[in-house]
Amino acid sequence: MNGAMKKNSGLLISKIIIMKSFETSFRVRYSETDRMGYVYYSRYAEYFEVARVEMLRSMGISYRDLEDSGIILPVVTYSIRFSKPAYYDDLIRVKVSVKCPLKASITFLYESYNEKNELLNEAQVTLAFIDRTTGKPVRAPAAVAEKFY
Amino acid sequence: MNGAMKKNSGLLISKIIIMKSFETSFRVRYSETDRMGYVYYSRYAEYFEVARVEMLRSMGISYRDLEDSGIILPVVTYSIRFSKPAYYDDLIRVKVSVKCPLKASITFLYESYNEKNELLNEAQVTLAFIDRTTGKPVRAPAAVAEKFY
Amino acid sequence: MNGAMKKNSGLLISKIIIMKSFETSFRVRYSETDRMGYVYYSRYAEYFEVARVEMLRSMGISYRDLEDSGIILPVVTYSIRFSKPAYYDDLIRVKVSVKCPLKASITFLYESYNEKNELLNEAQVTLAFIDRTTGKPVRAPAAVAEKFY
Amino acid sequence: MNGAMKKNSGLLISKIIIMKSFETSFRVRYSETDRMGYVYYSRYAEYFEVARVEMLRSMGISYRDLEDSGIILPVVTYSIRFSKPAYYDDLIRVKVSVKCPLKASITFLYESYNEKNELLNEAQVTLAFIDRTTGKPVRAPAAVAEKFY
Repeated sequence: MNGAMKKNSGLLISKIIIMKSFETSFRVRYSETDRMGYVYYSRYAEYFEVARVEMLRSMGISYRDLEDSGIILPVVTYSIRFSKPAYYDDLIRVKVSVKCPLKASITFLYESYNEKNELLNEAQVTLAFIDRTTGKPVRAPAAVAEKFY
Repeated sequence: MNGAMKKNSGLLISKIIIMKSFETSFRVRYSETDRMGYVYYSRYAEYFEVARVEMLRSMGISYRDLEDSGIILPVVTYSIRFSKPAYYDDLIRVKVSVKCPLKASITFLYESYNEKNELLNEAQVTLAFIDRTTGKPVRAPAAVAEKFY
Repeated sequence: MNGAMKKNSGLLISKIIIMKSFETSFRVRYSETDRMGYVYYSRYAEYFEVARVEMLRSMGISYRDLEDSGIILPVVTYSIRFSKPAYYDDLIRVKVSVKCPLKASITFLYESYNEKNELLNEAQVTLAFIDRTTGKPVRAPAAVAEKFY
Repeated sequence: MNGAMKKNSGLLISKIIIMKSFETSFRVRYSETDRMGYVYYSRYAEYFEVARVEMLRSMGISYRDLEDSGIILPVVTYSIRFSKPAYYDDLIRVKVSVKCPLKASITFLYESYNEKNELLNEAQVTLAFIDRTTGKPVRAPAAVAEKFY
């Protein structure tokens, strides 16, 4: 990112650089391992989904209530880069942050660590705010957006 | 089963002894294995769900349409006895049968075999016909029940 | 079981009636729900596997270490009876008990409850102690068995 | 990519532009849906793993044999962009291609389509060739690499 731009762009940038972050841990379940003995690669997407829900809960936002109110948040993009595998019974610590500002979507950044504090992987997921009845994108509900500023 | 009894026992018994059966095969996915190298024990319940849906499809019954019409079939009981494990990339053959007659529930019996025709496990699952709006048990829809006789 | 035998069998019976029990809770993950909105029926087997591992951990037994020492515990039988469904984000409390004595197998009994303390389901799983190299059943290692008495 | 470079780089480029591709289909299982009624976002990683294994099988390469020979292929990066959801019982067609040449890793590109031939998502996964005993990256075994040229 352009440093000069950062210096001059006032409010917008100050919002971009504000990031909420949150940590939660997962004990690897037997069902999550594969014949290599690793946590199967798709499983992190499940941990990340839980991590963002717990982050929202810690901010006073119930993802279930949000959905019941008619706003769903399907995933638009998801990417992950693996550095090290995790194993059965490992306690994985997931750090999740939110890139602000949010408009019609919300982007979560993730880092996973094992108990030796070694980086396991880094990931990013973007979800869209969608009106369930129309199927159209909508702006983040004010009750959600305001918690991020 | 006793042939003489069959001859004499009239309509009811003739219904009970009629069993529809069906076979389908599953290639074990990497994600379905665990660190022992076995198919994780919960995974068979997923295979069995597919086997019964494919059986119904082969009889002209769409489980999706059934659900969309307002009848759901939650599982009431499920049991499985394991004889041998299955491994990654094995082709598992699942034989599914239906115990008739069906009233407010339907019971499927399963046997799983590997490519050497060794019995892997035997299982049984009973699902209830439930009206989605009332949450109450209902009789099997005629369009379903008649396919079994 | 034979009542006369019970009266006379002293130590053995006193062992049978001793049951260790343990409780742990699971927050239902989005990935565990299905299109009915219920926790998919196979998922409880995953919760139960975690519950028994956490029970063993609370008794000073590491399931991972046990496996690394060459003893694996594949599931022999599993059965579950459902009373009520669980839903996304529900906090499910699983109570697990062990039927003693254990010899070449170990049987866990389960009850799951929702936050209203309603019974969701009851289940039972039996695992065999197997020597990984020979594939043969073995007696429960003394270090495990002694924790149950 | 630089057009001038492409014109001049001879064999290397001719290898890069050769892509093997393969198609396979998946019937969405009940267990793969979530309470939105969508295929849960992590599930595509499982489909893609099957698609690449079936592609290799069609080329005469057994992924299981490869692993049994001491080479494992953990995922290094995975990314997916979703355009449309898939639903229960949909028949999803996955097209998989391989970017050549492969050295110490192999990259698969994916496109998923529903029965109306609508694009559901596009994805990319890169796996490393790793020697299981040393844990170090190795070049793709000749028996694998030669199938791609």
